[in-house]
This record gives sequence, structure tokens and C-alpha cells, in this order.
Amino acid sequence: MKDKKKIVLVSGNLNKVNEFKEILKDSFEVENMKLDIDEIQSMSLKEICEFKAKEAYKIVKKPLLVEDTGFFIDELNGLPGPFIKFFEENLGKGASIKLLGNSTNRSAKQVCAICYYDGKELIFEEAEMNGIVSNEVKEGEGFGFDFCFIPDGYDKTFSELGLKEKNKISARKKVIDKTKKSLESSA
Amino acid sequence: MKDKKKIVLVSGNLNKVNEFKEILKDSFEVENMKLDIDEIQSMSLKEICEFKAKEAYKIVKKPLLVEDTGFFIDELNGLPGPFIKFFEENLGKGASIKLLGNSTNRSAKQVCAICYYDGKELIFEEAEMNGIVSNEVKEGEGFGFDFCFIPDGYDKTFSELGLKEKNKISARKKVIDKTKKSLESSA
Repeated sequence: MKDKKKIVLVSGNLNKVNEFKEILKDSFEVENMKLDIDEIQSMSLKEICEFKAKEAYKIVKKPLLVEDTGFFIDELNGLPGPFIKFFEENLGKGASIKLLGNSTNRSAKQVCAICYYDGKELIFEEAEMNGIVSNEVKEGEGFGFDFCFIPDGYDKTFSELGLKEKNKISARKKVIDKTKKSLESSA
Repeated sequence: MKDKKKIVLVSGNLNKVNEFKEILKDSFEVENMKLDIDEIQSMSLKEICEFKAKEAYKIVKKPLLVEDTGFFIDELNGLPGPFIKFFEENLGKGASIKLLGNSTNRSAKQVCAICYYDGKELIFEEAEMNGIVSNEVKEGEGFGFDFCFIPDGYDKTFSELGLKEKNKISARKKVIDKTKKSLESSA
């Protein structure tokens, strides 16, 4: 049996790290590193992730993955997008509810992106999950906008569905799957 | 008479360039350069400007100034702050009005920051102007949040006051003055 390929996942979020490890475990040995890497200001997750992957490679010098997530609210023409984390840090679990105020258009999408870089090859993948922003914070399991995002086809927020259910359907699950396929076919 | 010291102002915004030139003209010869430099994601104008100044210096290799402006809305715990430009690009002149919705607390502040860097010495200055977000967009002269920001002590938006009046009182005027003094005393 061939040794599993080793990949460094650059992320400080243990929830995300465990999700990556679980999904990739058949083909890859995922080692986590937390690095303090500047992210650039952009509405494009592709730009942010590619920059971050190249900066991280200068330190890690091994094949690596970086990821970023955005929350794109229709009524705000996509904002806050990649800046959602600053809103969550400053406004808490219901940040998106606060931003929407009384707006009746509550459509939003979770977009997750991953960039793989090994010093030569660069692979970028992105996936999205459409849904709506709930009218109030719903407690449960999760982090970030999980407490106020109801994915299409459900009547519960990610937090109410719980991590196990969320991890079957979320954009993060989809983009890790896509990346796995790309890595397997390029290996 | 001593030659005026030359400084490169890294900015693509001609409104700002003219303001800098006007205020600094007695002591400095300001040359404008437009560079495509990545800004980092941060709520701190200091972090953003210092990073930008050092990145710019790698290209310019001469004493330079960079600047950044944030719009900090009380009700949103300071957001969007340095990210205001993305909101204006996507939501137009009334971006801050849209973000506030029906909130009664309409306090906000304009914060302008400048960083000087010559490869050795780094000077950072910041100034602010408090005020409120208007209930509707007010036409007139200006750019960005000028159309919906009423500075303290006035009952008109920056756009209604006009550029000439605005440039006497704005945070940008104050921070250019502060930077001028710092540069003169360090020269």
C-alpha cells in the first residue's frame, strides 16, 4: 500500500481542521499548522486564497492547503463577503441579522474556497450553498454565521441542524470534496 | 532657499492627491504615483498603512506617503471601518445609510491615517472627525461617504458643504497637518 501523501493545512480553526481531516483521510495525511498570515482586502476569495497560499508556502515549504469562507448577502450586493469574520467578531452570532435590519430579501450564500500550493502547482476550488438569513439567532452547534443561516431545502439554521448534519451539506464539505478529487487526479 | 524635500504620495485618488499637494506645498514637493498594492484585512488603519508603506517602498525606493481612510459606525461596533470602500463600490453613495437601516443611533466617525516611510524611519499619524450618518443621500461635491456624513457642529453633509469647506475641517485635513509637522520636526 502506498504511503498517504502529506499535506499541511494552514488554519487556526479546529472545527475546520477536523472537517478537512475527516473528509481527506482516505487519501491524505493532513497536518495542521497555525500561521499568522496577512490576508489581502478583496471581494474575491480566489485572490485572497492564492495570495495566502503563496505567502504560507514561503514559511511551510511543503504542499499545503489554505481556505477561506465568505458570506454573501444579496441585499448588500454580496457584502460582507470575505469580511464576514470582522462582522462576527464585532457584532457576534447575529451579525448578518443586524446588517439586514428589516429587509425582506434575506437571500444569502455561504461560499467556501480552498487553494492548494506546492511551490509549482496551484489548484483553486470553490463551492457555494444558497440559503436565507434567519430573523433571529438560533442556538445550537456551530460557529460564525451557522446561528443565522438557513440552507436551501431546510427550515433550520446550520446551528440547529448541528455540525454532523451541516458537514454533510455545507459549501465547505463540497469544496473539500472537489479539492480531494482535483488532488487525486493531479497526483 | 533650501530645495523642498521630495515625497512620493502613493494614491490613485486624484481628490486626495490634490489635497495633499495643497497642504504640503510650502515644505514638500509631492509627486504622485499610482501603484497596485495589496492592502491587508484588518480593523486597524495603522496595520494597513504600515504594511502598505513597506510594500510600496520595495517598488518606489524613495521617501513616500500612503494613506487610508475608514468609516467607523457606532451601531455596528466600528464596522465597516477600513472596508468602507467595498461597501461604497457595491452599494453606492448611500452605503452607510443602507447599513444602518432604521437604527436611531447614527453616530459615526471618519478616521484618516497616513504612514511615511523612507526605508528607515516610519511615521504614522491618524486623525478623526466625529459626526452622524444622514437619513438620506445628499447630493453635492465629494466622494465616498461625503454624501451621507454630517460632521459634528454642522447640519450639512460633507457633500453639501463642498470640497473647499470640507477640506478645512475633515480628518484628512487634520492628519495631513499632523504629518507635515512630524516630517518637519524629523527632517
